[in-house]
Amino acid sequence: MARNKKAVILLSGGLDSATVLFWAIRKGYHPQALIFDYGQRHSREVASAKALCKKAGVLYQVISIKLPWQGSSLLDKKAALPKAKNVKAVGAEIPSTYVPGRNTLFLSYGLSFAEATGAGAVMIGANALDYSGYPDCRPDFISAMSKVFKLGTKAGRQGRPIKIVAPLLKMTKSQIIKLGTKLSVPYQLTWSCYRGGGKPCGTCDSCLLRNKGFKVAKVKDPAVN
Amino acid sequence: MARNKKAVILLSGGLDSATVLFWAIRKGYHPQALIFDYGQRHSREVASAKALCKKAGVLYQVISIKLPWQGSSLLDKKAALPKAKNVKAVGAEIPSTYVPGRNTLFLSYGLSFAEATGAGAVMIGANALDYSGYPDCRPDFISAMSKVFKLGTKAGRQGRPIKIVAPLLKMTKSQIIKLGTKLSVPYQLTWSCYRGGGKPCGTCDSCLLRNKGFKVAKVKDPAVN
Repeated sequence: MARNKKAVILLSGGLDSATVLFWAIRKGYHPQALIFDYGQRHSREVASAKALCKKAGVLYQVISIKLPWQGSSLLDKKAALPKAKNVKAVGAEIPSTYVPGRNTLFLSYGLSFAEATGAGAVMIGANALDYSGYPDCRPDFISAMSKVFKLGTKAGRQGRPIKIVAPLLKMTKSQIIKLGTKLSVPYQLTWSCYRGGGKPCGTCDSCLLRNKGFKVAKVKDPAVN
Repeated sequence: MARNKKAVILLSGGLDSATVLFWAIRKGYHPQALIFDYGQRHSREVASAKALCKKAGVLYQVISIKLPWQGSSLLDKKAALPKAKNVKAVGAEIPSTYVPGRNTLFLSYGLSFAEATGAGAVMIGANALDYSGYPDCRPDFISAMSKVFKLGTKAGRQGRPIKIVAPLLKMTKSQIIKLGTKLSVPYQLTWSCYRGGGKPCGTCDSCLLRNKGFKVAKVKDPAVN
């Protein structure tokens, strides 16, 4: 292979990273997935990520992280999840679902895994348009982390830095869904809701963004019905 | 407290981070240590780090990391450790003991732990003078990572970024040992040798750097005799 097409993909089980996975395959990459089990409120997300890998025929590794992250309502079942008045209010400020340093840590694992296995890229589904307002999803953060990838590794010092590929960074949720629909992403396998349970709650930030995205894209969400 | 003196310290069990630990206490910080168990060739390092925490009266948490790091001779017992002809040759190129993305990952854990527990700093014993040539010990890497700390967190966005404190970055090994001797760092508890066993081998890069440091500082190494 003239260009290194081996890639590590950070897979959450949500809509965005699922789209990146199928996009990468279509683009001729050979992805391996990292799935993080970090004490989420429910195990639904991890199960979705595994199901997506099986469907795509991609190998995965589950990384277990134990940190004192009790402060985040995404992890603490006793904490109330934020309830935005409407989808326009989502992302206006950093919500209680924020997990300290999450994407920094996930990308670091991706970097390390990529360099150890000779992959040339780490892929992430971060996007900063229809998003929850997390600081570690924004373009300036991704740029800063790219510099770390370049300066902090043997690969980078030797002139073949591992790249961060974030194809959805500046796309709206409906654009992502349109792209994924073209790529036949099995959205019925994805899970976006901050709660677990049988059906998405429809009221958390993540459900609001997803529902708006499908509505604007004029696509029926196969996970809801 | 007017200024946040709560700090997270990345503790390896070696000479450098031990010095940072006692320096931090002397400076009035309240450190908590993170110790990483990542499949080192021997468990001596982790035992040393724990002993240092007990001696200093500091709480610690052991973080277990499982990654496909077999490529590094620091982790693979079957691989040969590098043997420099002399101490001047150490650090001239990146050695086989390099572990992909190690300090990026350790600092990311530090960041996450610091933000989750309200600490204002992450401390690391990195130094780039008498060192093994690892890219993730250099000042430009530390600067890039500091930017990540600022941009990728809620704390940073709210104007109180978590700082990376690397007090040894531009010190020689003998300067570090002189500082530590003033601070009464119990160097007999530290372990620098890449091998395990009862006594340091005296021939690996890390032993060469340590021995030179004590010699130049005109201090007897209490771990050797």
